[in-house]
Amino acid sequence: MRLLVANANTTEAITEACAAAARAAAAPGTQIIPATPRFGPAVISSRAENVIAGHALLELLAGHADKVDACLLAVSHDTALEAARQMMPCPVIGMTEAACLVGCMAGGRFGLVTFGGIETYRELVARHGLSSRLAGLVGVNATPPEAVADPDGVGAKVLAAVADLAAQGADSVVLAGAALAGFDRRLQPSAPVALLDGMACGVRMAEMMVALRLPKPRTGSFAAPAGRASIGLSPALEGILRGQT
Amino acid sequence: MRLLVANANTTEAITEACAAAARAAAAPGTQIIPATPRFGPAVISSRAENVIAGHALLELLAGHADKVDACLLAVSHDTALEAARQMMPCPVIGMTEAACLVGCMAGGRFGLVTFGGIETYRELVARHGLSSRLAGLVGVNATPPEAVADPDGVGAKVLAAVADLAAQGADSVVLAGAALAGFDRRLQPSAPVALLDGMACGVRMAEMMVALRLPKPRTGSFAAPAGRASIGLSPALEGILRGQT
Amino acid sequence: MRLLVANANTTEAITEACAAAARAAAAPGTQIIPATPRFGPAVISSRAENVIAGHALLELLAGHADKVDACLLAVSHDTALEAARQMMPCPVIGMTEAACLVGCMAGGRFGLVTFGGIETYRELVARHGLSSRLAGLVGVNATPPEAVADPDGVGAKVLAAVADLAAQGADSVVLAGAALAGFDRRLQPSAPVALLDGMACGVRMAEMMVALRLPKPRTGSFAAPAGRASIGLSPALEGILRGQT
Amino acid sequence: MRLLVANANTTEAITEACAAAARAAAAPGTQIIPATPRFGPAVISSRAENVIAGHALLELLAGHADKVDACLLAVSHDTALEAARQMMPCPVIGMTEAACLVGCMAGGRFGLVTFGGIETYRELVARHGLSSRLAGLVGVNATPPEAVADPDGVGAKVLAAVADLAAQGADSVVLAGAALAGFDRRLQPSAPVALLDGMACGVRMAEMMVALRLPKPRTGSFAAPAGRASIGLSPALEGILRGQT
Amino acid sequence: MRLLVANANTTEAITEACAAAARAAAAPGTQIIPATPRFGPAVISSRAENVIAGHALLELLAGHADKVDACLLAVSHDTALEAARQMMPCPVIGMTEAACLVGCMAGGRFGLVTFGGIETYRELVARHGLSSRLAGLVGVNATPPEAVADPDGVGAKVLAAVADLAAQGADSVVLAGAALAGFDRRLQPSAPVALLDGMACGVRMAEMMVALRLPKPRTGSFAAPAGRASIGLSPALEGILRGQT
Amino acid sequence: MRLLVANANTTEAITEACAAAARAAAAPGTQIIPATPRFGPAVISSRAENVIAGHALLELLAGHADKVDACLLAVSHDTALEAARQMMPCPVIGMTEAACLVGCMAGGRFGLVTFGGIETYRELVARHGLSSRLAGLVGVNATPPEAVADPDGVGAKVLAAVADLAAQGADSVVLAGAALAGFDRRLQPSAPVALLDGMACGVRMAEMMVALRLPKPRTGSFAAPAGRASIGLSPALEGILRGQT
Repeated sequence: MRLLVANANTTEAITEACAAAARAAAAPGTQIIPATPRFGPAVISSRAENVIAGHALLELLAGHADKVDACLLAVSHDTALEAARQMMPCPVIGMTEAACLVGCMAGGRFGLVTFGGIETYRELVARHGLSSRLAGLVGVNATPPEAVADPDGVGAKVLAAVADLAAQGADSVVLAGAALAGFDRRLQPSAPVALLDGMACGVRMAEMMVALRLPKPRTGSFAAPAGRASIGLSPALEGILRGQT
Repeated sequence: MRLLVANANTTEAITEACAAAARAAAAPGTQIIPATPRFGPAVISSRAENVIAGHALLELLAGHADKVDACLLAVSHDTALEAARQMMPCPVIGMTEAACLVGCMAGGRFGLVTFGGIETYRELVARHGLSSRLAGLVGVNATPPEAVADPDGVGAKVLAAVADLAAQGADSVVLAGAALAGFDRRLQPSAPVALLDGMACGVRMAEMMVALRLPKPRTGSFAAPAGRASIGLSPALEGILRGQT
Repeated sequence: MRLLVANANTTEAITEACAAAARAAAAPGTQIIPATPRFGPAVISSRAENVIAGHALLELLAGHADKVDACLLAVSHDTALEAARQMMPCPVIGMTEAACLVGCMAGGRFGLVTFGGIETYRELVARHGLSSRLAGLVGVNATPPEAVADPDGVGAKVLAAVADLAAQGADSVVLAGAALAGFDRRLQPSAPVALLDGMACGVRMAEMMVALRLPKPRTGSFAAPAGRASIGLSPALEGILRGQT
Repeated sequence: MRLLVANANTTEAITEACAAAARAAAAPGTQIIPATPRFGPAVISSRAENVIAGHALLELLAGHADKVDACLLAVSHDTALEAARQMMPCPVIGMTEAACLVGCMAGGRFGLVTFGGIETYRELVARHGLSSRLAGLVGVNATPPEAVADPDGVGAKVLAAVADLAAQGADSVVLAGAALAGFDRRLQPSAPVALLDGMACGVRMAEMMVALRLPKPRTGSFAAPAGRASIGLSPALEGILRGQT
Repeated sequence: MRLLVANANTTEAITEACAAAARAAAAPGTQIIPATPRFGPAVISSRAENVIAGHALLELLAGHADKVDACLLAVSHDTALEAARQMMPCPVIGMTEAACLVGCMAGGRFGLVTFGGIETYRELVARHGLSSRLAGLVGVNATPPEAVADPDGVGAKVLAAVADLAAQGADSVVLAGAALAGFDRRLQPSAPVALLDGMACGVRMAEMMVALRLPKPRTGSFAAPAGRASIGLSPALEGILRGQT
Repeated sequence: MRLLVANANTTEAITEACAAAARAAAAPGTQIIPATPRFGPAVISSRAENVIAGHALLELLAGHADKVDACLLAVSHDTALEAARQMMPCPVIGMTEAACLVGCMAGGRFGLVTFGGIETYRELVARHGLSSRLAGLVGVNATPPEAVADPDGVGAKVLAAVADLAAQGADSVVLAGAALAGFDRRLQPSAPVALLDGMACGVRMAEMMVALRLPKPRTGSFAAPAGRASIGLSPALEGILRGQT
């Protein structure tokens, strides 16, 4: 199967890192197709950037409609997930969504660790209807550059956050944000509960959804768009809204 | 005060209708400044269109930053409301948000009537944290063109929906969607509970927020963006993300 | 417009302070009419006092029915708010309700600071259906007399509570209780998020509701009382229950 | 034990009917002491009346403090329940609260049937934190006089409502409102699930609470009032607020 | 009345302790009939043990069907409560359920203290639909043997937990777990709020339910089983599933 | 990988049907190992049977610990799921859990159709924390034998239920219960939204969890049992509780 790994940031290096993580996690027959938006924020870290990136991501996806078997949104905010799901003819998975659902199947409640602000992640978990499965969130006081420069120091902070969440009742912990990629493998031996990486969970969930061959709904708010007029959009995006897939 | 009435659809006629409704509702000293996005869907009616319109709307707002005292999003989906609120230096109000909050102050629970699908409105009310104040939603089986061609026939359908919601316990009813604009005044005499129009509620709420002169938060996820890099955005939008307001 | 500012405590000094705050917040055309109940607790600080004050407040309001355009309940417990809303022919606003709804429009979640016990405020926010918008509550260890005697010391405690709530994710903070009146203006420059004063929010919300000219519901639990018999009530209250407004 | 059965309506006939029902339900050693308020609505049927009756009920209770072992509020709205609980030195039970909690122990979810409006009962169940245990509410189209004049016809309507609620998943049904008193015994043989009468449940719950001999909290919002000043209240009520019990 | 006090652990000493506590709490006419399962965990302290004990408990109960007037499950996990309630012809009460419901009638919110893990108790309160009435849970760092060896030291830890919960807003505190039996009487004089013992609350609630003489539902998921085939069960359990009670 | 498909009913024919469905859904490298409990209900259809089957299922699983890579509980009630998850060293998946989580990734809300009673399924979805993602439940008036005898007639009833749920806002529908196995493939072409079969979803989810190689938690309520004493259990079950895996 062909899996589009669609970054919502315009930083190519993040796309490449995500693609590498996806390839490491994928089943043998899964081909990873990385993609980066044409415009938008370098790295999403605010509400406004996330909205802009949503458009950029839909444009990116529209260019791959009917060329891939599934899409994995390689952005921890699950940017434009429901819209992408409605628009595309194939399954679309959000990486944090996937990690949270794996956390559900790991049992009990999950925690979430990220760098910096946690409020939009709290809202994201609520948007997925999983607030009662969330044990807590911790925003580690570290930046992506620090994570690169001092992985051990930052790793210790992340482990402390994981231990804190386990004490609050978390039975697993989602690591959210591209800057935390790879920390799950490094820190897992020292962690009391499972660490959940969105790319790994997302790739496997995408493979699972493709295997199930579910039809697209013909009714409701996830039915494919058709006959929608627009101006100023990319030809592919304009076409998919008109129903030309 | 100067109130930007920002449409999220690219249909000028809707912008004009909204501006007229806003002027009719505004206090004497309120100047209505209508605006239409440069790109995007003609009329938002799906999840994908709503995401695209979010970017278009932020671009539109960025071009008016520091030129207006408040913004009213003239779109019943409250498109990109939280992002706009974070990005802009002035209050930003969503028209359905405003109507729902007026419904709260009318007392008890409110209902919501729209044309067509109701699920995204159910999600919108949940996003505002008001699900427990929602008595029900009804999607009237009618289209905007029908509302223009046969206002009495469609009005009768809307009244039936209002009566249905009142029987379910609604103490007021939000009319959601540009196509329902003006129906509140026409149908109110026959309705058992107050009909809430998003433009009227939104204009008055915007005036109220301006009067309160609340400062912008200096911390948290609604603090103004600064230092954010991006590519391919309009100069105004790119600038506001960098912090050049 | 004529706005009744109805205290629920029998302490005249509180009524006067509230009226002054209301006048400072009001639009030019708004006339503030202060009123104090004939009986009841000097200062409400328990569940039992709040119930007694509810009756006293309704009696007070009944005496002003048809003489005012709106009522603002000048009591942070939103005492008898729903009952007053049902009984009166005009809009009725609770000051904490108003501040919480302004907090919603400020974005994200709000916190609440008061002196002393917080549990009844937690219940009040739940009664308004806004629990999911509440980031937290802090009961500052201070008394109203201390606030008068040592405003700087108490102000420092309030600021610490505000900072604590902002760290918990509050994007704005409601200051609840008459003893905190005026602290918003004094402390705002030092606070990281907007401080919300119930009197200011309430006056502006009342003006907004009057401007919208919503009809009273003819059905449901907020329809005006009629034909209700009673004994031992004030003539005005007895009359309004019988439907003689 | 001495159990005060405190009506919140001023209609003596209701007090007598409640007292009779209480006596029929009570254990041998339980002495029923009926009481009627000095002022207030003849029969509570609106939000405003319920607030007024709250004061009347507290005054009534204050006159019996230290003379009874427990209080049962003989009013289906559980009027002023939390306030009474805070104020009195003995256990206080609400009749609908009691019936709902018995419904919990009957298993699964309960329904509620009343005459007329259901919205305030929906709010009451939410106030008790039991919304997730509520299968549904039905407002039977009948009046108390009709229930007296045509008990069989009205009984058939109530049975239809019970069957409707059972089909919605109710495993028991609360009959709320004095006018439904006695219907549980008459209709039970024909009902598919248990019918719960507030007076019977309340008397037994009051006996249970007395048997447990729980101490009054010394802290929090249910600790006894003390040192509270007031004007215009009955001597007993004024005294209990000052702490003279 | 005859009250079966059914342990779900196979440790006879716990059964005897529970029976003694039940006798101390019971009304004069209540005969306590203790019972211990034939198989299962010595002391339930994990999810797997709780499931196994559920079967053992149902087998135990089936052997007493029609010989007792009510059953009290003497296990703080309310093991198999809903199943037992469905299966038995008489009322069945869970001891933690009973304590939580008494906590509701004590007013406001309750806390819960246990030894060790709290997550399954959090789930139990949610299963009863009472999460919004729960102020918090504390797992005291002590073991049952320590409670026997050093009751004063452990008692001090429990009191600290109770004080912590009261500060979080608890108006009463449930003591959960057999090892905490008796601590309520010893610690109550030093505790700021009521301590709730599951055996005491459960015995009184069982007496109350018997007094109410509610019929068993004839429909829904709590109707008695009938015509169910099975293999390998005890004759009594096999019989009750077939409907031979 | 080796996947245990563990029935919780003692009817071999159901085990075989489930195993066949599992084989049809599995990836090439997945070996299906069917298993049937030694004792318990022939077909679970009540709360009591479900509890008994929980023990039987744990005994069955314990006999396969360390011999399989994952377990799929082939019972639509997700019987003893959390206990099994705690006890076993490998991933354990519930078939209805899996279908519900796939429904989440299909987008929006899911519905659920079963034969007969729906209340325990409503509770099951709540236990998984997914109530806000549930659009509705329908209990089709049909029995398993009827489904075999008249698949077209029963299929028409199921399709009507699916259409009803789609009209209530369901974007996918879970078919719950062994008797509905295979209906998804037969009815899908006529259904407006995706039909979700628990066995297919469960097999794929189990494969996904195995691929992720998550460690077992070393702390919390899902850590493996150890040192637990018991009597009367099967050697394997007794051993796994003692920690001899």
